[in-house]
Amino acid sequence: MIIVLKSETSDADVADVERRIRAMGYTPHTIRGELRNVIGAVGDDRGKERLRALESLECVESVTPILQPFKLASREVRRDNTQVRVGDVVVGGRTIVVMAGPCSVESRLQLLDVAARVKAAGARVLRGGAFKPRTSPYAFQGLEVEGLKLLAEARRETGLPVITEVMEPERVDVVAEYSDILQIGARNVQNFSLLRRVAEAGKPVLLKRGMSTTIQEWLLSAEYVLSGGNPNVILCERGIRTFETATRFTLDLNAVPVLKRLTHLPVVVDPSHGTGHWEYVEPMAMAGVAAGADGLLIEVHPRPEEALSDGPQSLKPDRFAALMTRLRKVTRALDRDL
Amino acid sequence: MIIVLKSETSDADVADVERRIRAMGYTPHTIRGELRNVIGAVGDDRGKERLRALESLECVESVTPILQPFKLASREVRRDNTQVRVGDVVVGGRTIVVMAGPCSVESRLQLLDVAARVKAAGARVLRGGAFKPRTSPYAFQGLEVEGLKLLAEARRETGLPVITEVMEPERVDVVAEYSDILQIGARNVQNFSLLRRVAEAGKPVLLKRGMSTTIQEWLLSAEYVLSGGNPNVILCERGIRTFETATRFTLDLNAVPVLKRLTHLPVVVDPSHGTGHWEYVEPMAMAGVAAGADGLLIEVHPRPEEALSDGPQSLKPDRFAALMTRLRKVTRALDRDL
Amino acid sequence: MIIVLKSETSDADVADVERRIRAMGYTPHTIRGELRNVIGAVGDDRGKERLRALESLECVESVTPILQPFKLASREVRRDNTQVRVGDVVVGGRTIVVMAGPCSVESRLQLLDVAARVKAAGARVLRGGAFKPRTSPYAFQGLEVEGLKLLAEARRETGLPVITEVMEPERVDVVAEYSDILQIGARNVQNFSLLRRVAEAGKPVLLKRGMSTTIQEWLLSAEYVLSGGNPNVILCERGIRTFETATRFTLDLNAVPVLKRLTHLPVVVDPSHGTGHWEYVEPMAMAGVAAGADGLLIEVHPRPEEALSDGPQSLKPDRFAALMTRLRKVTRALDRDL
Amino acid sequence: MIIVLKSETSDADVADVERRIRAMGYTPHTIRGELRNVIGAVGDDRGKERLRALESLECVESVTPILQPFKLASREVRRDNTQVRVGDVVVGGRTIVVMAGPCSVESRLQLLDVAARVKAAGARVLRGGAFKPRTSPYAFQGLEVEGLKLLAEARRETGLPVITEVMEPERVDVVAEYSDILQIGARNVQNFSLLRRVAEAGKPVLLKRGMSTTIQEWLLSAEYVLSGGNPNVILCERGIRTFETATRFTLDLNAVPVLKRLTHLPVVVDPSHGTGHWEYVEPMAMAGVAAGADGLLIEVHPRPEEALSDGPQSLKPDRFAALMTRLRKVTRALDRDL
Repeated sequence: MIIVLKSETSDADVADVERRIRAMGYTPHTIRGELRNVIGAVGDDRGKERLRALESLECVESVTPILQPFKLASREVRRDNTQVRVGDVVVGGRTIVVMAGPCSVESRLQLLDVAARVKAAGARVLRGGAFKPRTSPYAFQGLEVEGLKLLAEARRETGLPVITEVMEPERVDVVAEYSDILQIGARNVQNFSLLRRVAEAGKPVLLKRGMSTTIQEWLLSAEYVLSGGNPNVILCERGIRTFETATRFTLDLNAVPVLKRLTHLPVVVDPSHGTGHWEYVEPMAMAGVAAGADGLLIEVHPRPEEALSDGPQSLKPDRFAALMTRLRKVTRALDRDL
Repeated sequence: MIIVLKSETSDADVADVERRIRAMGYTPHTIRGELRNVIGAVGDDRGKERLRALESLECVESVTPILQPFKLASREVRRDNTQVRVGDVVVGGRTIVVMAGPCSVESRLQLLDVAARVKAAGARVLRGGAFKPRTSPYAFQGLEVEGLKLLAEARRETGLPVITEVMEPERVDVVAEYSDILQIGARNVQNFSLLRRVAEAGKPVLLKRGMSTTIQEWLLSAEYVLSGGNPNVILCERGIRTFETATRFTLDLNAVPVLKRLTHLPVVVDPSHGTGHWEYVEPMAMAGVAAGADGLLIEVHPRPEEALSDGPQSLKPDRFAALMTRLRKVTRALDRDL
Repeated sequence: MIIVLKSETSDADVADVERRIRAMGYTPHTIRGELRNVIGAVGDDRGKERLRALESLECVESVTPILQPFKLASREVRRDNTQVRVGDVVVGGRTIVVMAGPCSVESRLQLLDVAARVKAAGARVLRGGAFKPRTSPYAFQGLEVEGLKLLAEARRETGLPVITEVMEPERVDVVAEYSDILQIGARNVQNFSLLRRVAEAGKPVLLKRGMSTTIQEWLLSAEYVLSGGNPNVILCERGIRTFETATRFTLDLNAVPVLKRLTHLPVVVDPSHGTGHWEYVEPMAMAGVAAGADGLLIEVHPRPEEALSDGPQSLKPDRFAALMTRLRKVTRALDRDL
Repeated sequence: MIIVLKSETSDADVADVERRIRAMGYTPHTIRGELRNVIGAVGDDRGKERLRALESLECVESVTPILQPFKLASREVRRDNTQVRVGDVVVGGRTIVVMAGPCSVESRLQLLDVAARVKAAGARVLRGGAFKPRTSPYAFQGLEVEGLKLLAEARRETGLPVITEVMEPERVDVVAEYSDILQIGARNVQNFSLLRRVAEAGKPVLLKRGMSTTIQEWLLSAEYVLSGGNPNVILCERGIRTFETATRFTLDLNAVPVLKRLTHLPVVVDPSHGTGHWEYVEPMAMAGVAAGADGLLIEVHPRPEEALSDGPQSLKPDRFAALMTRLRKVTRALDRDL
């Protein structure tokens, strides 16, 4: 932490701040500048957050953290990339892992149809929502446990492992029973009770970025899962909220190289939610992989114009297959597989 | 819903879209413009969300909702202001209700000291966090049930009703046992499972705006509680996330008159979280009331420089008392009480 | 500046960075932490920006400025509030200065009518646009010099000083000939050529915040005018761009107390552009004054539904008069005049 | 335009709004809904902006535009991609055009050195700033005309056409004398006087997006140049301002496919300014091309750690060459050239 003092600060004030820093267990290093004094506080990072309270002293102008506050998620703690294994599938290795399927599981027929077709096109994981977080209480809320059972059936039929969202701590066990990867949605990225529970569930976790979560906060959410004993965390960029309304969200691909620098965890990109419109899914999927992502999460629906949720951003199976063909060329140019 | 067709659309396409609109139970009204055709879909609003799926048709350029999607929260459904009663306190009436206390309950002494002093200065509700949603897993997480018991003790001592945050569906019952108002924090504004549970708890709910929640989404979250059978919802503006870093968040006071126009629910403002810095709390508290808010949520701590959370934004009890004195003059000028 | 080194940095790297800091004329102070080293660079602030280039060294993690980069605008350089005099009117004193009038000067009749009515209601300055920055080339672009002449006529008729916008360096002289305050619009807040020119024009300057300008950048733009020899700068908050679409912009009243802390320059608030809707102008005008603003900029039009620009946010003269009556009570409660 | 009326609207109100629409030269089409009435206004788009003023009527809830307000920039007006020719170079064709060079022209040696090296690596246009828009008045402001002459010399030496920024209407002629492409910087995207002047200068214009400019506003700025008689406009995405601070701006690659859908103008991407950090330039350059961009603008400096501006985001020549090698593989996979 760097504590900046106000310009008129007396020596007694400096001594008082130094004393308080020591009392919290840190060592103060004071730099006397021409206009004002600055104190660096050195020591164990875990509790550094408490130093921020010094900002309420009259003589303190600001308290600025210097180090990233996450530990286990940091590339400094672990240099090698984490590879998350889901059956035969490895997320974070040489192969780009595409997870595809409908936004919501709507019926047995719909799901089995889509599952077979995304598998044929090269998807390695089947996605599908059974519990749906919907902005409006009047919108379709998902098939719930019935949907989970259909996902399990589709897994048996296709051999594809399954990813689906869990929204409540109380439901973690039942979702973990049917699903291979537990998805934490954007709206739950700081649902800390839920993060603590999935840490104990023994299944890989895909953690979506919140729509206004900074990369640092996102990695602290990952830290909840990692420090709870679950090392298998996949990060998923899915768009942030900005002033631009031409897209549903602003898919922030900058997050991919930033994460690759800061953390060892694998990173996937969701161009469907990120853009909100099917015409933008292919170019942003290509761009996500070119930016260095380890995988993609893509919504596919046999008849998007009749979908119960997120129709506008769903690809038809044929378009998805065409995207996979184009993507294969790009991944090869990047020395990766699809 | 207004469905805008692309410019090259054929008559067959128009007929197809009209047919689909009818199939979903709506009546299409087509306006033929000079450059393109536009279709209005008229009918019951509840399921209109489904019409959005039409955006995935090749001939459709965009689907734009025209009506606000919330019902029970709307001023059209209920013209008179809702007044939420908490013991003798009425939120949403002529009196500005100030809820004050520490960010976190840290100890019996701290809480009882602050409680007595905010009461003496004119606060009508005691705030204090027992379960704390913390960005970092390494930060102080609250005294939990022990904190709830201290809040109940402070209520007995001072007679002030108590507001505290609940973070998990499973904890709603225990928090409701000790607390008079259930607070839903910014990070849980779209935790729909939690919203459904507090709807059933039979206690008033204070629903904070999320840091990137639009006013429309916020009212839809309120709608979850209202449609679950609980009419006692208080909305709390607490700052949104923008590019500006001079304040912790950007307290969006524009939300106050916008809400007053759209909804009958009472609105309070939290200048402590909204600005993140004690020097800005007084001017923004005054401004919040001048903008039309029905109450304020303010953090007060006896020694902010030692606070376990949010020290920089906490007022000392003396400053809080001075704020109340200045605020009293402004409320009088606005023909309201404090 | 605080230069944070990467964790694996060698002593030779530290020495190299220290050498480079000295070569740029600064004194390095190295703090050796448990995880990494941090170097503070002390010296004359003017050229500190150059130190940022050190971030491109492989061993440097980040370079963080500690001091505010503006000087003349800073309250540290000048403790007393600047008062800007415009004829008999003082902006930045005890009296709240309301500047009112139409968005655009549309005709002689319109302008003289509004001018008389805003004066009668208590406005102290007449606003009106002659050169209009319009997003679309097909929108009404203003009456230009003809508009300036009408403003001068309205000043003669009412005695009110006049504020109007100047958009081009080449036009500064002609606008300064007719206007008492030169307004720099939000889109030109970083038009540095224009800022340099108005610094030389010898008239007070009202500098609007850009829609994505941080407070620090805004004060640096003010610094262009101040360092160019013109001390009479008024800052005007007019709304920033955020994800919220219920208002045209998000009027950021937090900027008022932040500016009052950082700078001695007077601050006014424009609730018309900030909200974009007439129903929100009164509450946000009240709130702006309660937050500590020294004045208001308000759009008034005799028939907003026929205005050539910004009709939705214009008040009718009667509403404006009613606002002034309510505002007078609040200013009195704040120990200020109107 | 779609005019939504409030729910309590009388038939007389509807008739009044219809009358006003007709008076402005449009044809009203009224749709009577269950909850409220909606009126579509059909007619010539040029003046539709005026209809917005109807929002100030008491009975009107909102006025929503349906069509994109730009014309000449629209793909509906011109289906084929515009190709902008600069000497032998074509922007908007099959070949990805890389424009590279230093942020600022600092000296003859620096510029000629970089120019030769970026040419050798495959750049097709030389970039370099002579007039620099700097946030602080105390920062290096560019070599001005001296810088222009050095650029012209570098063009003679290398044969590369030159792009440089123009900031003032008065300087357009001198910049056009030395430069092959006129760059309008992000801060001037709504400097309408400047846009009108470059429209007349007879040279191609590269128009950067502003940091808070919507795509629609950006295309309206392009419309100023197009409607002024200059069809040779290149759009350049360079990052928008969001809450995320891990990158200097948020490079919005979503803009690439959105623009490709809406307009026929070529699109290039600036990953240097967009990310603000050299380590992110390569992945975001790759991603920009994969998203469909027609070119890149990249900052290269022989010694970034000593650069007078934007050192942290500049690549060394060797890194730039390595990027071009990797990029060549990706462009080939996309059936384009480099």
